[in-house]
Amino acid sequence: MSPDELDRTDPAGAVAATAKRVSNWGRWGPDDVRGTMNFLDDVKRREAAALVTDGRAFSLSQRFDMDGPQRGWRRRTNPVHTMLDTGTDAAMGDQGLPHGIGGADDVVAMPLQCSTQWDGLGHIFDHGVAWNGRPSGEVVTSAGDLVTGIETVADVIAGRAVLLDVGRAFGIDGELLDGFAITQRHLEETIERQGPSSTVGRGDIVMVRTGQFARTRREGWGEYAGGPAPGLSFTTADWLHQSEIAAIATDTWGFEVRPNEFDNAFQPLHQVAIPHIGLFIGEMWDLEALSDACAADGRYDCFLTAAPLPITGAVGSPVNPIAVR
Amino acid sequence: MSPDELDRTDPAGAVAATAKRVSNWGRWGPDDVRGTMNFLDDVKRREAAALVTDGRAFSLSQRFDMDGPQRGWRRRTNPVHTMLDTGTDAAMGDQGLPHGIGGADDVVAMPLQCSTQWDGLGHIFDHGVAWNGRPSGEVVTSAGDLVTGIETVADVIAGRAVLLDVGRAFGIDGELLDGFAITQRHLEETIERQGPSSTVGRGDIVMVRTGQFARTRREGWGEYAGGPAPGLSFTTADWLHQSEIAAIATDTWGFEVRPNEFDNAFQPLHQVAIPHIGLFIGEMWDLEALSDACAADGRYDCFLTAAPLPITGAVGSPVNPIAVR
Amino acid sequence: MSPDELDRTDPAGAVAATAKRVSNWGRWGPDDVRGTMNFLDDVKRREAAALVTDGRAFSLSQRFDMDGPQRGWRRRTNPVHTMLDTGTDAAMGDQGLPHGIGGADDVVAMPLQCSTQWDGLGHIFDHGVAWNGRPSGEVVTSAGDLVTGIETVADVIAGRAVLLDVGRAFGIDGELLDGFAITQRHLEETIERQGPSSTVGRGDIVMVRTGQFARTRREGWGEYAGGPAPGLSFTTADWLHQSEIAAIATDTWGFEVRPNEFDNAFQPLHQVAIPHIGLFIGEMWDLEALSDACAADGRYDCFLTAAPLPITGAVGSPVNPIAVR
Amino acid sequence: MSPDELDRTDPAGAVAATAKRVSNWGRWGPDDVRGTMNFLDDVKRREAAALVTDGRAFSLSQRFDMDGPQRGWRRRTNPVHTMLDTGTDAAMGDQGLPHGIGGADDVVAMPLQCSTQWDGLGHIFDHGVAWNGRPSGEVVTSAGDLVTGIETVADVIAGRAVLLDVGRAFGIDGELLDGFAITQRHLEETIERQGPSSTVGRGDIVMVRTGQFARTRREGWGEYAGGPAPGLSFTTADWLHQSEIAAIATDTWGFEVRPNEFDNAFQPLHQVAIPHIGLFIGEMWDLEALSDACAADGRYDCFLTAAPLPITGAVGSPVNPIAVR
Repeated sequence: MSPDELDRTDPAGAVAATAKRVSNWGRWGPDDVRGTMNFLDDVKRREAAALVTDGRAFSLSQRFDMDGPQRGWRRRTNPVHTMLDTGTDAAMGDQGLPHGIGGADDVVAMPLQCSTQWDGLGHIFDHGVAWNGRPSGEVVTSAGDLVTGIETVADVIAGRAVLLDVGRAFGIDGELLDGFAITQRHLEETIERQGPSSTVGRGDIVMVRTGQFARTRREGWGEYAGGPAPGLSFTTADWLHQSEIAAIATDTWGFEVRPNEFDNAFQPLHQVAIPHIGLFIGEMWDLEALSDACAADGRYDCFLTAAPLPITGAVGSPVNPIAVR
Repeated sequence: MSPDELDRTDPAGAVAATAKRVSNWGRWGPDDVRGTMNFLDDVKRREAAALVTDGRAFSLSQRFDMDGPQRGWRRRTNPVHTMLDTGTDAAMGDQGLPHGIGGADDVVAMPLQCSTQWDGLGHIFDHGVAWNGRPSGEVVTSAGDLVTGIETVADVIAGRAVLLDVGRAFGIDGELLDGFAITQRHLEETIERQGPSSTVGRGDIVMVRTGQFARTRREGWGEYAGGPAPGLSFTTADWLHQSEIAAIATDTWGFEVRPNEFDNAFQPLHQVAIPHIGLFIGEMWDLEALSDACAADGRYDCFLTAAPLPITGAVGSPVNPIAVR
Repeated sequence: MSPDELDRTDPAGAVAATAKRVSNWGRWGPDDVRGTMNFLDDVKRREAAALVTDGRAFSLSQRFDMDGPQRGWRRRTNPVHTMLDTGTDAAMGDQGLPHGIGGADDVVAMPLQCSTQWDGLGHIFDHGVAWNGRPSGEVVTSAGDLVTGIETVADVIAGRAVLLDVGRAFGIDGELLDGFAITQRHLEETIERQGPSSTVGRGDIVMVRTGQFARTRREGWGEYAGGPAPGLSFTTADWLHQSEIAAIATDTWGFEVRPNEFDNAFQPLHQVAIPHIGLFIGEMWDLEALSDACAADGRYDCFLTAAPLPITGAVGSPVNPIAVR
Repeated sequence: MSPDELDRTDPAGAVAATAKRVSNWGRWGPDDVRGTMNFLDDVKRREAAALVTDGRAFSLSQRFDMDGPQRGWRRRTNPVHTMLDTGTDAAMGDQGLPHGIGGADDVVAMPLQCSTQWDGLGHIFDHGVAWNGRPSGEVVTSAGDLVTGIETVADVIAGRAVLLDVGRAFGIDGELLDGFAITQRHLEETIERQGPSSTVGRGDIVMVRTGQFARTRREGWGEYAGGPAPGLSFTTADWLHQSEIAAIATDTWGFEVRPNEFDNAFQPLHQVAIPHIGLFIGEMWDLEALSDACAADGRYDCFLTAAPLPITGAVGSPVNPIAVR
């Protein structure tokens, strides 16, 4: 399906029809809490470790500070980091500790979706239904996600990752314009151009670089928090399902193309991908340095560890993904 | 040096004398911000990846929730996780979003030292002096750690780790008693007993299991937050230095034996290890499952990724360390 | 009704029967959001101001800090206050501001029910029904209290308050024992003993001193957060209704006697008072100094201003009540 | 002194010269922690209560929510209010409580200077010196304000307040333009125009309405947080001192005219008023409804209670000031 075939006036219909085609409900039993992470097994992980060639590591996280995209929408702020004790206090001898020891301690308050992150399976619902067909009200209450909390995948997310540098393949100076909808064809052509190290299959983690992140670093996020961006077309849902990938991440705020491809819509691909496919989605990953390294030697796969903080009941998690090549 | 030779009345003297012997100041130049992480290079990381045999992954993090050891001391609380949106709201159709999409969002407020964590180099000072000889007041202000913030090691901490299961070697039912001081001899004998996969050298990350964590899981943390625990003796400072390890982590709240080995003292080994050796210290790591796996097949080394959240200027970070064997 | 007549095995039955007798639903129309605060009008407030005799002011708030009763139950912590800038930083000239100005800024993170507080009308429900008969799910979502948020009474709570010093009347050294259930008889006898300034009627704010607060100041809160305490008997519901008071506050954590007067119960008087009577309840008010002053001259009424912070959608609020005599 | 006489290139010189003229250091002894609040005594408070005529109360606080002026500057966010329990959860019977009781609880995280507030005496320093001549590093550490924390005035701030409606007197449609510097002449003429109820003297709380708050309500705060605003001229320092007022509050973010009246400056009047005069400054007070009432009957004084939350060691406090006329 191409974006041209979407009925812009009927996102609900498109979501329903697509969800029917791509649903993984029941695939891993009625009690499943890991969705597509089931594709990422020990064998995959062992093969991934063998990809390490020179041992160079890349952090794919932006820095967590006030210089992020949040502007207060839905009460999302950038992370607020404050000190409980400081070196200035220690220097003035104000700390009341023995034998000259001094210390600094700190605190952070942040939305779990404020910066580089994983969306957990409890993050999005379709008409009040969560992953695997559970009623959302029985899954995520004020006490958090009682079933699919991010802690349930605390030990899974290490394996083979493939960078699909769509920005470099189709962008201007390596960057896609805001509003650019990445289709299955773009993904497949990128894989083909990049060569054999870019093959994508079961259990892989796909990282799609649009180049927008470079733009935000250069120009600042400004009033962003959900403004226009390149991103995946709604029509990639089938590819996301058929490829049997474990997860997908982009370098943008919201993974999907913004504005979305319907007249009155909000993140319809999420509505299919998370509750129906059971797919883990990463957002705001910094793929810049990795992109340069991959382009330099033509190897686009790596060993990736992107372990969420196991905050009990969280519907997402900040993460510092580490790619080792 | 054995613990018996310590002058219990003079922690300041012991710190000063030891610091002189083990100082790494200037070793990596005056501008260094990574301390012993300099030992962990690409070659080490490549060799570490080759240790992966079966691909099984272990999360070494406890869950981040109210069931942790913090009781308010120094304003440290357990992590407080609250929801911005829930599945119950979505189920009741209260969210005002189009085409049936619903969502859950969340927030966390937590001290960075509240649970499984890294101490950064700005966490501890000796008489107002921080790592590499810098005045602490120029390093950590209310704006955070301006020099050695944890973000400076965002991309380093992936490499070879060795589990030293001192609890299994010297404990009762695998657990050391509170107050048990682990000396260099205990470490060396553990290495010897465990066999060749336990050799410790430059750039390695050492994980010392005392077994106390199993006790806290069984009995709860109770009033803990700094109470009695097994841990490293102050006298291990020389071994920590000479071994040229990149980092060390324990399964206890505070790494050192508690009570400390002086009459009126607070964490004197930190005072040497962090500002003088430039050593990264991990605390409250859950080594239980890994310990069982290592004991089962006699392999005690693994590929570890323990990437901090790059909170700009943080003097420590929560972490979900992932060991792959 | 006396506590002896309660059927300890049937709190639900007692709640239902009592609620039927004392309900104020519809009394101020279907759209009412102020409940018993409707009793506190301008005339009452003008009369109250005339009670000021010598002009002395009393703060009835405990200090907001880590030395409070919260121990993590239901994710309630004591208030965590951290600094964004400090005087030590300013003294070291670290702040980057012109012409020698320096500053200190700070942040607080706290449950709104953590210390001296008002319970708002959205704080308690009876079988999913909130004040005035509204379905609780339409009143309080993750976005907060959409109907009876505490901001709706931002400008009301200034008026006549009467201290009923039950601790002084019936306690030992001025303190009731934990578990002491204050009945209507105790309230009436206290009023009688205290004399004419203690008459309670429409629109008044009643402050009941048990003396437990003095005990917590002396001995610390310890593991408190809901442990045993003196407090109002369930059987006072009718008095609370018939007296037409605007609000009631106690010096205890939870207003009601703890343990509650049923075998398996949790705060049953709240379940009647808030959703059915529409009554505002204050908790953890420090009545000690005021008690001494009242006892000294026999005047038990005063002009009280106890304005909540108008946090939009809050179901309660910290408050610093000011009594002026 | 008129603003024309200021040397725009020398804020430091102006601060120093003015501070010398207006200093109250030592006036209330070396241990004083209350500054100008010493002017507000029981006699003043008693006289103020007698001003209450009709009993109508006005809340002078804006609502505490995400719709405030903070945009992240200096890590100041708007207040973030989240729920620990909700009515939707209660409606779905998810709360695990007995006899049908349900509840909602909530949390707030906020800078103490984020909305309607008091600046405490530890909020501003002059060249590292705090109120009464104390070194700022001994007053405000990471542990908070150890000397002049806002809790020290928990029981003081109830007394006579006078509204000086400069916006109505000198503005267009009741609003001063951004950048309008209010001088002593403007204050005096406003007093004269308003008549005898506006006399200002020892112990009074002055509330200056510029009208900018009405503008922010109408147009939103936008990117505000310190942008242009009307406010007091630096040259009012002498009047602030000689009038012996207890406190002053405005309806703007920062009390002083913005931009400030020097070429490179930041809030120079604060630098004189807080550490030298010992003056309490209120900011972002909503004076709109009160202004209308005062204009209607020509009475500009009232009984004001503006009690800070006694957060131990805080350098400021959110407040809901209540004016009763």
